[in-house]
Amino acid sequence: MTQAVPAPPLHPDVLALAGLLGTWQGEGAGEYPTIASFRYREEVRFWHVGKPFLAYAQRTWALDDGRPLHAETGYWRGRPGGAVEVVLAHPTGIVEVLEGRLEAPRSAGGRRRIELGSTAIARTGSAKEVSELRRVFELGDGVLAYTLAMAAVGQPLRHHLAAELHRTGPA
Amino acid sequence: MTQAVPAPPLHPDVLALAGLLGTWQGEGAGEYPTIASFRYREEVRFWHVGKPFLAYAQRTWALDDGRPLHAETGYWRGRPGGAVEVVLAHPTGIVEVLEGRLEAPRSAGGRRRIELGSTAIARTGSAKEVSELRRVFELGDGVLAYTLAMAAVGQPLRHHLAAELHRTGPA
Repeated sequence: MTQAVPAPPLHPDVLALAGLLGTWQGEGAGEYPTIASFRYREEVRFWHVGKPFLAYAQRTWALDDGRPLHAETGYWRGRPGGAVEVVLAHPTGIVEVLEGRLEAPRSAGGRRRIELGSTAIARTGSAKEVSELRRVFELGDGVLAYTLAMAAVGQPLRHHLAAELHRTGPA
Repeated sequence: MTQAVPAPPLHPDVLALAGLLGTWQGEGAGEYPTIASFRYREEVRFWHVGKPFLAYAQRTWALDDGRPLHAETGYWRGRPGGAVEVVLAHPTGIVEVLEGRLEAPRSAGGRRRIELGSTAIARTGSAKEVSELRRVFELGDGVLAYTLAMAAVGQPLRHHLAAELHRTGPA
């Protein structure tokens, strides 16, 4: 957006998620029983506007020829006690609602873990069926790794994506 | 996103929606039985990456003191025969799926009308209940007007928002 306003302070509800802010880039790998395995380049951005959520946008490109692959966009809401709520839209005609928690690091300097599971998934008439999503993020010092498991097109929940990203700049 | 790639051609599935592309700015007014009426400044962006959807992001600010109000983000999918599918996420913890149609102009040089109704709405545990949304857009030469009706927090479907925007730049 083109508004030139001073950066507001981070809202207290998303202080625990502050480590996500910025632009992240890296590579990942995808697999699923119904498709050929693939590798991708990814860019993720988290930013804020002083309200109790982080805005989120993600894009991926094929590692072989650079064609655009997936994208998704939405918001992460911080809630009391480490609870996290995420709402996302996908250009494939899917929306998802995820809920979960931000865990404390298991060791000094260790990565913080955010586990999210879908509580609702809806779709347009032309979209493929997706019935469950589980996303696990691990946030370290300048590194963000995630895995995604999916139940879709008649398949049970199983591993679909894994990527590791590095912070390359501000949001 | 920071990818410096040449702009790809518009995907044929979204040719009918090409008139939406760009950055739009203007003002609107909101009302609902449960809140005080308000006026807002709005910025809307539609852009594309060569795939069969337009990406969409919107923000509003209070007209009186400039504080950020609403935001939403998602994708518009063009389908055969003028059908349109929209998936959106809201930072209030709501996701919506809309389906509808792009109508031909009723007169030469007239505005094109896009009527969309919610087919699914889902939300996080902390979000307010929204049970139905209807959005009508009217797209003219450099002007985009819309109305939004909403059933929420126990109220029946009724008028909530109206705005008129003007194209102020590319996406």
